[in-house]
Amino acid sequence: MSRFKVAVQVVPRRGLLDPQGKAVADALHTLGFGGVSSVHVGRHLVLDVDASSEADARKLTRQMCERLLANPVTEDFEIATVAPA
Amino acid sequence: MSRFKVAVQVVPRRGLLDPQGKAVADALHTLGFGGVSSVHVGRHLVLDVDASSEADARKLTRQMCERLLANPVTEDFEIATVAPA
Repeated sequence: MSRFKVAVQVVPRRGLLDPQGKAVADALHTLGFGGVSSVHVGRHLVLDVDASSEADARKLTRQMCERLLANPVTEDFEIATVAPA
Repeated sequence: MSRFKVAVQVVPRRGLLDPQGKAVADALHTLGFGGVSSVHVGRHLVLDVDASSEADARKLTRQMCERLLANPVTEDFEIATVAPA
């Protein structure tokens, strides 16, 4: 067993309403950042995962995303990095 | 002016309590993912920024993080990518 540091990004599915992103964009405009035209807010998760291999760590992380970390109806997830911890 | 797609990650500062990460770790254990030992939950933001250059887009994004996107007391931010949109 080795330990892997896994980074996952969970983002609102494209085309769905993203009220948090809209609120941040409005606030940025109010602060004077007029050049910002689109903001999407998702979650960035970093996990330490014990697994026998990098492929195994990736598979476990995918299962965690499907079962808990991402809402399968409204969100997409991406496993950004899997690296030895 | 060009448009750049910027990705930013905002994470709880190392060493500070991360109750959301703790809750996710506990839930993963309950679901049978015993090999997960540490979870940190932050935000993943994707912005479209109009700027004259990539360096300018990066500078604007840094200002946005300092003024709105990250809490300077409890969070660290990292500009992960700046790419032409």
